[in-house]
Amino acid sequence: MISQQMPVDHVDVLIVGAGPAGLMLATWMAQCGIKTRIVDKRGTKVFNGQADGLQCRMLEILDSFGIGHRAWREANHMVEICFWNPDETGLIRRSGRIPDTIPGISRFQQVVLHQGRIERFFLDFIEGSSPIRVERGVLPTTLEFDESAAEDTDAYPVTVTLRHLSEEEATPKQASTAANGSSVQDGLFRSNLAPDDTAELLRSSELSAKANTEEVVKAKYVVGADGAHSWVRKELGFSLEGDSTDYVWGVLDIVPITDFPDIRMRCAIHSATSGSVMVIPRENKLVRLYIQMTTQERKEGGNGRVDRSTITPELILQSAQKIMAPYKISYRRLDWWTAYQIGQRVGTHFSAKERIFLAGDAVHTHSPKAGQGMNVSMQDAYNLGWKIANVVKGLSDRSILKSYEVERSRIAHDLINFDRKFSRLFSGRPARDVMDEEGISLTEFKKAFEKGNLFASGIAVHYEASNIVSDVKNAKERVNGDKSKTLPAVTSDESLASKLTVGMRIPSVKVLSQSDARPWHFQELLPSNGAWRIVLFAGDVRDSEQKQRLQTLCDRLSEADSLLRRFTPADGRYDSVIEVLTVHAASRTELTIFDFPEVLRPYDEVDGWDYNKIYVDDLSYHEGHGQIYEEFGIDRTKGCAVVLRPDQYISYIGPLDDYESMDKFFSAFMIPQATSSKGNIVVSQ
Amino acid sequence: MISQQMPVDHVDVLIVGAGPAGLMLATWMAQCGIKTRIVDKRGTKVFNGQADGLQCRMLEILDSFGIGHRAWREANHMVEICFWNPDETGLIRRSGRIPDTIPGISRFQQVVLHQGRIERFFLDFIEGSSPIRVERGVLPTTLEFDESAAEDTDAYPVTVTLRHLSEEEATPKQASTAANGSSVQDGLFRSNLAPDDTAELLRSSELSAKANTEEVVKAKYVVGADGAHSWVRKELGFSLEGDSTDYVWGVLDIVPITDFPDIRMRCAIHSATSGSVMVIPRENKLVRLYIQMTTQERKEGGNGRVDRSTITPELILQSAQKIMAPYKISYRRLDWWTAYQIGQRVGTHFSAKERIFLAGDAVHTHSPKAGQGMNVSMQDAYNLGWKIANVVKGLSDRSILKSYEVERSRIAHDLINFDRKFSRLFSGRPARDVMDEEGISLTEFKKAFEKGNLFASGIAVHYEASNIVSDVKNAKERVNGDKSKTLPAVTSDESLASKLTVGMRIPSVKVLSQSDARPWHFQELLPSNGAWRIVLFAGDVRDSEQKQRLQTLCDRLSEADSLLRRFTPADGRYDSVIEVLTVHAASRTELTIFDFPEVLRPYDEVDGWDYNKIYVDDLSYHEGHGQIYEEFGIDRTKGCAVVLRPDQYISYIGPLDDYESMDKFFSAFMIPQATSSKGNIVVSQ
Repeated sequence: MISQQMPVDHVDVLIVGAGPAGLMLATWMAQCGIKTRIVDKRGTKVFNGQADGLQCRMLEILDSFGIGHRAWREANHMVEICFWNPDETGLIRRSGRIPDTIPGISRFQQVVLHQGRIERFFLDFIEGSSPIRVERGVLPTTLEFDESAAEDTDAYPVTVTLRHLSEEEATPKQASTAANGSSVQDGLFRSNLAPDDTAELLRSSELSAKANTEEVVKAKYVVGADGAHSWVRKELGFSLEGDSTDYVWGVLDIVPITDFPDIRMRCAIHSATSGSVMVIPRENKLVRLYIQMTTQERKEGGNGRVDRSTITPELILQSAQKIMAPYKISYRRLDWWTAYQIGQRVGTHFSAKERIFLAGDAVHTHSPKAGQGMNVSMQDAYNLGWKIANVVKGLSDRSILKSYEVERSRIAHDLINFDRKFSRLFSGRPARDVMDEEGISLTEFKKAFEKGNLFASGIAVHYEASNIVSDVKNAKERVNGDKSKTLPAVTSDESLASKLTVGMRIPSVKVLSQSDARPWHFQELLPSNGAWRIVLFAGDVRDSEQKQRLQTLCDRLSEADSLLRRFTPADGRYDSVIEVLTVHAASRTELTIFDFPEVLRPYDEVDGWDYNKIYVDDLSYHEGHGQIYEEFGIDRTKGCAVVLRPDQYISYIGPLDDYESMDKFFSAFMIPQATSSKGNIVVSQ
Repeated sequence: MISQQMPVDHVDVLIVGAGPAGLMLATWMAQCGIKTRIVDKRGTKVFNGQADGLQCRMLEILDSFGIGHRAWREANHMVEICFWNPDETGLIRRSGRIPDTIPGISRFQQVVLHQGRIERFFLDFIEGSSPIRVERGVLPTTLEFDESAAEDTDAYPVTVTLRHLSEEEATPKQASTAANGSSVQDGLFRSNLAPDDTAELLRSSELSAKANTEEVVKAKYVVGADGAHSWVRKELGFSLEGDSTDYVWGVLDIVPITDFPDIRMRCAIHSATSGSVMVIPRENKLVRLYIQMTTQERKEGGNGRVDRSTITPELILQSAQKIMAPYKISYRRLDWWTAYQIGQRVGTHFSAKERIFLAGDAVHTHSPKAGQGMNVSMQDAYNLGWKIANVVKGLSDRSILKSYEVERSRIAHDLINFDRKFSRLFSGRPARDVMDEEGISLTEFKKAFEKGNLFASGIAVHYEASNIVSDVKNAKERVNGDKSKTLPAVTSDESLASKLTVGMRIPSVKVLSQSDARPWHFQELLPSNGAWRIVLFAGDVRDSEQKQRLQTLCDRLSEADSLLRRFTPADGRYDSVIEVLTVHAASRTELTIFDFPEVLRPYDEVDGWDYNKIYVDDLSYHEGHGQIYEEFGIDRTKGCAVVLRPDQYISYIGPLDDYESMDKFFSAFMIPQATSSKGNIVVSQ
């Protein structure tokens, strides 16, 4: 298939698709210094439309790359959800309010910001920290996978041909819609009512062959983050399973002119007989309306799909006006609009032999109203990125890659179930009374919303047992008998941190730096840089017995064959593979960092001692007391040890001084490195 | 003097000097859309050295331009001050700790970040929001001022010739100091031990005349922000008054290698007989040491000044080592160093007929150790900028310009007194016992530090009475008999907001937006955009009597000749000159913005009603309850009205419905505008 004349490039990772999932993956690769290319068939990034909620967990993740504050500052903060329902007379009125984000689950709350800005933050990060550049207008045309070389870590088993498109080819054809006198780009080309445009792009590139050049890329790993119509998925012969419903929704992004008083709240509005509207207030005075199109207003095309040509912004607005009556709503500014039919589908496979992976819409599609799509897609890539990076760098064996499908396919199924329930409730007609079985109970709807909020926050994600999640209870339930899954090598003792859960992300409260008394949110100490972390909750180190336990552990950690030295390359910094952080519970002012063993504050010939490794659970001057021991359910005298994955999920909880279990945990998947005779820890004079 | 052939440019404002004060002024001009040029004789901005503390108030101000978060994220946060003093045996030990920033006075705490970064934030703002660009390597050579035209608002009474330097001329000659084997730029060229280099620059530009071009700028206003050796000040014949002390200090910016345990704290270290060190921990592992050089180590040149050639980084380090013994300190990385002799001087005049102004080091010099220099300089410009902008735009008469010297010369004198006391205490030898009258009492030192902290925060700034500060009590004390000062037109009633003070900046706690329940720090609602603000603390608007008071006021505000319409140009937005913000004290959930008169949530034909004008003092879901009424000492039923200057300082406090006083206040200095027949407030249908 591949011509001998074409130039051949070797890369560690090839990413197909530069939407949120592809860019998240590229961000990890940039951060970890992995040789990567990322291509997208479109000529430009998106500029408007495609607003999306950012979950609390998503903001925590963006913050771990140092870009969370940009989203937090620019986004609209959605604080409250208001429910509007028909009263006895059939007119809508506010029937309840709940907080949009459950108080206390995160230091962030859900916000809304359009996808183009999120992509900008990723692009800025990638360009600022690596040579990786998104190559736009580049279409993959052939994919060959030598499965026999899948387990050879030095091999480049995937071969992809890339075709560079002309500018015209790479520009998606968008209908320019005249609305209120001005021309507005619609979003139908991205809608699932629109046909896949890949074939069209391919065809047009054949026609203008002169404008094209082709090249061959040989990759160790390929990630298909190329959307619902994924070319990578089709090349692999994988499919999405599920079904579509016959609910049709219109979407308007407008600057509303309305006397509806809750237009800046997230609202779920059920009218008596005209359908539902969801209101999502956005940045820059915009409001997104998701509007149910009733059957009278649409003409069906073939196979249950709607003929999109009948839908216009005016038609969608008319639906909204009926639902929101007696309140008036209109607009002078229309930013974007689209229409879609809900379909819920999950991929049959998330990877081909852990060499070619699918992420984001390529493995799950669902309705946008729950504000989950972009989040779950980016989190697929967030889950996958550090694993690929650690394997490519030769730090971990390939077994950790199996956890990607195990962990993310479950999330995708949970998401589909959530969306199915949520959509049914939201699309249905309100029940007239308790005897009206076809109608939707609005009490049930509000309850589902409250329960759904925890899911929708992203905080509830709970990864199941594997060799990187030492959750034995869970392991017995789930892994038993399934040979495709890897078992934990050690057993956690969750009673030592009774409010933490192995397999979930570690929560955050404030701790103080021992060296300068500055308060930090605990998660701020866990940037996404690819490193594992051992967090030593050292307890009260003034207690002599406890001090001895800490000393014993540190003596072992300092030895030449310790897990800290064995798995760190000779040229790696002492914290580049496994970082040790200490959070003690004694009084800050009674101690200094020099009261702690040197391995907890390593010495560097140029920088001196490391002042950023030891923290304390104590009262700050300006930001209160985080009470991390209490919040995590850890005994203030005895403490415990917690191992965190590079993505902040908890791998293991054990006694502070159980070095052997920690060593066994890492030994199950990490690869010993050639270290220099001196080792990587410099001992001060 | 000026050749007929030179090109002549007309500008509203010419700023000489692009350091922090000049850039702050340019930031105001960019924000307000004023035609401005800013020139600096140096060819590049500063890149290292010149670290400076940023006060809480300074961070509030930076935040009001949307750049505070950049400083806050990058800076080192100084949280605690540790005092180290000789014990009975003469060895230093920690004798006390205090918070570096008094808890509760601001939402920010003092941080440290080097000047080059602050300048970068200003430059990004200016370039992002205006056509103004800093012109570097440009030297003013002549200044002519037609005083007879000073009061003619249409005149350009100042004429300045600018010479464009060659690159060589614009590059300051810095000694390259070999330190620890590597070449390090020193800061002596900026030190007040170094001779002024303007003359040298001028001379060398005469020599290479070919490289030069000259032009003439005619300006309505000129601001000299050109440093301690200010050319503008010298042209005006103004001088600095004060004296220099014989204390000599060395400054080292190093990555320290030390067993001194508080190296990441701000420390004041007094040794028994070897002098003092102040430790200022900085960003990027750097620590700044201010080290007292004892008399043995320096050789005097003429007129009491030190021969700088005898001072080297090694010599400074040796002093530090003696003072900090028995702790060891050394370094491998030296980022910058300098040495200076303290001089405290204040300018005799801050302006020439309110047409040419001096700001920053051009009117006050002092020691850097108190971390005040950059802050006070930037705040000079912050005080001046909106006044010039409002006068240039024809919104205010020139009387408000008089307040610049009244307000800022007092701050400069306070600063000098603070610095004099602080330096004496810091430079002196610790008293051996209570009978040792020549020594410094360390109890007194710590007390002075604690008291000084409020001054050093910038929060204590209290501007005296004038036509823009309606502080009658203060006015009687200070203005009586001095014809150069303008008197308030109305009388404030501070008892209505018993914890606020007219003439001080308004403090900040959180309030909720009525329209979307989002919590905002009150100060975040007061961006520096040049607008005045009337804040209506509307009280409990469920109370019918109170509701009527509010309605009466709003009826008056809505009239065609109201202060809102009279002073706003026909093409100006309703909130461009005077913005009305409402903070009520009823329950958020019982009201919507439509329960308030329309003038409090104005209607726009394209944007609909304004959702960002009405706030409430209520409990938030995630960020507690700001209790703004309690914090400001305002009655929750009756409320009050507060007028804020464009720089967030309180001008006036009065009863909620006393429209006449507010009208009288603004009428004293604002210029009625030609308004269209329709007025600038659009009334909805």
